[in-house]
Amino acid sequence: MDKLASCFVHHGAPTQSFKPHILQRSIHLLSPSHRRSVPVVRCAAAAHAVTVSKGTSAVDAAVVNGSSSSSFDFERYLSAKAKAVHDALDAALQGLRCPESLTESMRYSVLAGGKRLRPALAVAACELVGGHPASAVPVACAVEMIHTSSLIHDDMPCMDDDALRRGRPSNHVAFGEPTALLAGDALLALAFEHAARGCALAGVPADRALRAVVELGCAAGVGGVAAGQVADMEGERAAAVGLAALEYIHVHKTARLVEAAAAAGAVVGGGGEGEVERVRRYARHVGLLLQVVDDVLDVTGTSEQLGKTAGKDAAAGKATYPRLLGLEGARAYAGELLEKAEAELDGFEDARAAPLRHLARLVAYRQH
Amino acid sequence: MDKLASCFVHHGAPTQSFKPHILQRSIHLLSPSHRRSVPVVRCAAAAHAVTVSKGTSAVDAAVVNGSSSSSFDFERYLSAKAKAVHDALDAALQGLRCPESLTESMRYSVLAGGKRLRPALAVAACELVGGHPASAVPVACAVEMIHTSSLIHDDMPCMDDDALRRGRPSNHVAFGEPTALLAGDALLALAFEHAARGCALAGVPADRALRAVVELGCAAGVGGVAAGQVADMEGERAAAVGLAALEYIHVHKTARLVEAAAAAGAVVGGGGEGEVERVRRYARHVGLLLQVVDDVLDVTGTSEQLGKTAGKDAAAGKATYPRLLGLEGARAYAGELLEKAEAELDGFEDARAAPLRHLARLVAYRQH
Repeated sequence: MDKLASCFVHHGAPTQSFKPHILQRSIHLLSPSHRRSVPVVRCAAAAHAVTVSKGTSAVDAAVVNGSSSSSFDFERYLSAKAKAVHDALDAALQGLRCPESLTESMRYSVLAGGKRLRPALAVAACELVGGHPASAVPVACAVEMIHTSSLIHDDMPCMDDDALRRGRPSNHVAFGEPTALLAGDALLALAFEHAARGCALAGVPADRALRAVVELGCAAGVGGVAAGQVADMEGERAAAVGLAALEYIHVHKTARLVEAAAAAGAVVGGGGEGEVERVRRYARHVGLLLQVVDDVLDVTGTSEQLGKTAGKDAAAGKATYPRLLGLEGARAYAGELLEKAEAELDGFEDARAAPLRHLARLVAYRQH
Repeated sequence: MDKLASCFVHHGAPTQSFKPHILQRSIHLLSPSHRRSVPVVRCAAAAHAVTVSKGTSAVDAAVVNGSSSSSFDFERYLSAKAKAVHDALDAALQGLRCPESLTESMRYSVLAGGKRLRPALAVAACELVGGHPASAVPVACAVEMIHTSSLIHDDMPCMDDDALRRGRPSNHVAFGEPTALLAGDALLALAFEHAARGCALAGVPADRALRAVVELGCAAGVGGVAAGQVADMEGERAAAVGLAALEYIHVHKTARLVEAAAAAGAVVGGGGEGEVERVRRYARHVGLLLQVVDDVLDVTGTSEQLGKTAGKDAAAGKATYPRLLGLEGARAYAGELLEKAEAELDGFEDARAAPLRHLARLVAYRQH
């Protein structure tokens, strides 16, 4: 049984105990532009499909969902993209003419692995609109650098003060606070340098590359990660955080960078405006899904499974989806987000959309 | 008497007690590519000119130096450019859709002023090669955002732990460490977003804008500021820091961003390869000059004059140019750097080169 299939089996279907009233409520968590066309019956169908897929292979699940991509080997696709991006990151972080401790600190966190979902999303979005995957690799690497930079800074003592990341000591524990701070800064700056230089080398037209830089810059800063982090901190000090505030935090802290990865991938791939916007909406749902599932796993998983301290959010009394919606409510919301994400792919050719469809499901049903 | 002239009078000429043997030694501080064609006699002539200029106006000094830009009002030029960039920064940091505390923290440090030398350099370099100054404003703003970001992070407790910056409480003192950390990150990301978006809006061809992004990314990260900061920290732990190590630190920590400002300005202005490279070399000398003069002022200035804690480097036993070369030796080296910087402008039309010529002198003779 492949990894994806095992996710279905062990994790159980998030919509197993599907409750329309919870779904209806959770629809209101999304901004008005997202409250469009997700009939509950479609969610129910998805719930049925997922329930049926328990104990079956990923391929069976795809068939059940009516996808024509039944012959598509997603595990192989994902691992090929992850390897291509990992190798490109490794090359980008070699031979840097800077102090060795800085290079080592950057490499330690960037090459530690992780799921590489964001870069895979960038490459898959590029392919979705007919672009060559190599065009998206520089942008994919840049997204991973930005993401890693934010994780390094987020773990620092003045922020979350987390000593464990991806099953290893956090960057500041391994290299000291000043080097960790500067490694985060250097990765953030390198992301833009690498994206711009890499796009030029890959033959991506300069205007597309420039648009990708705008997407990434916005998502890393005031339009995304940094804004979400500040809102998160303010939430911790507030008496109570409601669903709207929680949604703001996670859209910014997590979903915007996922969205930028996909949008930038589609842009460098030559996607038209409409295509880019559909990909953007798909990815925003997936990004939020990533966080909802993270919140669920923080309750249900172990530190060993997660590679980071489990139950930390609950212990800190932080607002999470399970806390505000209940565990089942959070799972139902995850099911809804998956459905909405997949709906955005309907207009694309099935074979090209298959990777993004599977990727959304992987995010929904993962266990770590 | 204008400000520039008063600098000449009060500060005294750095080459007043000009010693050829110190100059010869200090020439070796520069990389081989910089050891080219600075005959000592030219430095002696510059020393003479500067000595003569004591007590005269900036215009007289320009005449003495053989510049045909005697009618050029540099003070007015600099303040016009500083205002244009300040206004653009103010606009860029207004109406951001992010938590107010983040916006306030960013605005607090970016709009605190400072000399705005880096942005002025970007605009002047653009004009030097025949570009419209408006083309360089987005890049100039980006440079200031990067510079401010590095100052915010540099002042943090885990770094230099400095409570005072530009005569006011440092960002982390005013807003707390987490917000300061995130404001630095957000400014760094915004720099690239703003440069890319702003260049497009200003009609700068995308390939030029992309090259500017590469320049800035490199200078902010592993090819500049971050690398220099790490080398600086390692220097503090080392038993002794020699001239080569000191030069590495300051070329990276300070000069590379100054160089990127000028190079990016020349690139967006449409400069040819040769022009961009000459501007780059000019700016590298000016960047290093900025640091050498900073070191001198740390010894000779007061906290009130500098707007930051004076004598801190000496108290911390840090390697500085005055410490390694003696105060007069450091001043002589400043004179040499000024001479070399100006020599790079010789091939350009006098009137166009005048702002950069004056800017280099302002850096050399400033008192804060």
